[in-house]
Amino acid sequence: MSEAEEYAKTPRSTVNRYKPRAVYDHATVHSIIDEAPVAHVSFNPTPLDDDPFPTILPMLACTGSYTKPGAEEKSAVGIYLHGHVASRLMRLPDTQSEDQSTLGLPGAPVCVAATLFDGVVLALTPFNHSCNYRSAVVHGFANIVVDEEEKSYALKLLTDNLVPGRWDNSRVPPTEAELKGTTVLRVDIASASAKIRGYAAGNDKADLANDEMRKRVWTGVVPAATVFGQPIAAAENLVVEVPEYIHSWIDGGNKARRAYSEVVASKAGPQK
Amino acid sequence: MSEAEEYAKTPRSTVNRYKPRAVYDHATVHSIIDEAPVAHVSFNPTPLDDDPFPTILPMLACTGSYTKPGAEEKSAVGIYLHGHVASRLMRLPDTQSEDQSTLGLPGAPVCVAATLFDGVVLALTPFNHSCNYRSAVVHGFANIVVDEEEKSYALKLLTDNLVPGRWDNSRVPPTEAELKGTTVLRVDIASASAKIRGYAAGNDKADLANDEMRKRVWTGVVPAATVFGQPIAAAENLVVEVPEYIHSWIDGGNKARRAYSEVVASKAGPQK
Repeated sequence: MSEAEEYAKTPRSTVNRYKPRAVYDHATVHSIIDEAPVAHVSFNPTPLDDDPFPTILPMLACTGSYTKPGAEEKSAVGIYLHGHVASRLMRLPDTQSEDQSTLGLPGAPVCVAATLFDGVVLALTPFNHSCNYRSAVVHGFANIVVDEEEKSYALKLLTDNLVPGRWDNSRVPPTEAELKGTTVLRVDIASASAKIRGYAAGNDKADLANDEMRKRVWTGVVPAATVFGQPIAAAENLVVEVPEYIHSWIDGGNKARRAYSEVVASKAGPQK
Repeated sequence: MSEAEEYAKTPRSTVNRYKPRAVYDHATVHSIIDEAPVAHVSFNPTPLDDDPFPTILPMLACTGSYTKPGAEEKSAVGIYLHGHVASRLMRLPDTQSEDQSTLGLPGAPVCVAATLFDGVVLALTPFNHSCNYRSAVVHGFANIVVDEEEKSYALKLLTDNLVPGRWDNSRVPPTEAELKGTTVLRVDIASASAKIRGYAAGNDKADLANDEMRKRVWTGVVPAATVFGQPIAAAENLVVEVPEYIHSWIDGGNKARRAYSEVVASKAGPQK
């Protein structure tokens, strides 16, 4: 599966509002999930007759493509999640396989959403206000990763997606108790789409014709980014200097995120 | 309903993992929803037989308590959302009232989640890695706001929740077409909880006994916050100076968010 490929537009995944903002290519969808510090995972915990609400949990998530030792081809890209072995979401694939409503499905149906917030868009009228953002919404089937090598691959991937290089620079290998206490889920992607707004404020012709009002109402974009601060060592820390891989991750990431939010703030948007 | 009150712990809302992180008081839940730049709203778009997936949309959301003119008491706090009149979520209360599965419910069942990401927690072992965060998960019934005064109240609230004072400093009142093209939903809260992690890294005794490893592995917190940059005026902007209410919102908010993420980074956590 090439990164240049696109996810099929299904009724479930097709963006209907502001169609020019929709993106379906794999690389964009995956990068939003990997870059967002937190993903939101939605699922129906119980049969709807008992409780009609889907629920949402904030989770760490990252995309990965695991190749079995000796295999020639990489697997399709999936989304890895992890959690305590006894938590409700981690037990979902097991509990739902006994549930009539999902019987026969290839896993527990979940939705994974990730959103990067890039700024506030201040138009002349509140009704043209908006945000700059990049969001991905993925629907897929979650299953517990039982292959021990794939589980190790996923746990390293999730750790390094938080801070690149962190796994090898922490206390590894994990103990048997750590591995037993942690469940990894892989969400096999059924459909996916992304939506991106990254441009200047858009104003209506009628408002632009009103010079008196335009002299009162400031219009533009206030860019925004997640910015990491200086590392604060734990009381128990024995490493005198903050390691270089942490510094370069902080500085490089802050610079890139700020630059992106500023560049798109003055881009021209689609014609009104 | 007093802000000091708590949401009831129902099976749906009770936090089971890391119980000391759970918070149920109204003020905390509401403040997380109002402070998060983006909320995630989950719902089941179609009967599950046709499609088993809940979906998630990133949305602006804020809490409000509307008092009808002449009424003596404020209404309970609800969550306001808005969107294009023809969008799927905005039509949900209407479409679901015709649907057998939700017939008889006081609105469309939705879940609203908001998460503030406050830092990365680097423990000695990857299995004690975590994030500092404040998250709220609310379940409730969404209905279209038909009262025109409540709709106006909610639209001003949503705009001012983005940038305080913005409504009065933009082109208002709205035109008839703007109001007709926008639907406001109010989510009446059925259950709610918040979860907060705001403290230093927690390490296992066995790891703390390993001095050789501790001299290699840096442990601590890298604080994080949403930081707004300098406003970038639109090409059409005619206001020479960025207004004071925008500057003070940017500077005050950045300072407060950064300070919070730094203060909690060195707080002592619960004993291991």
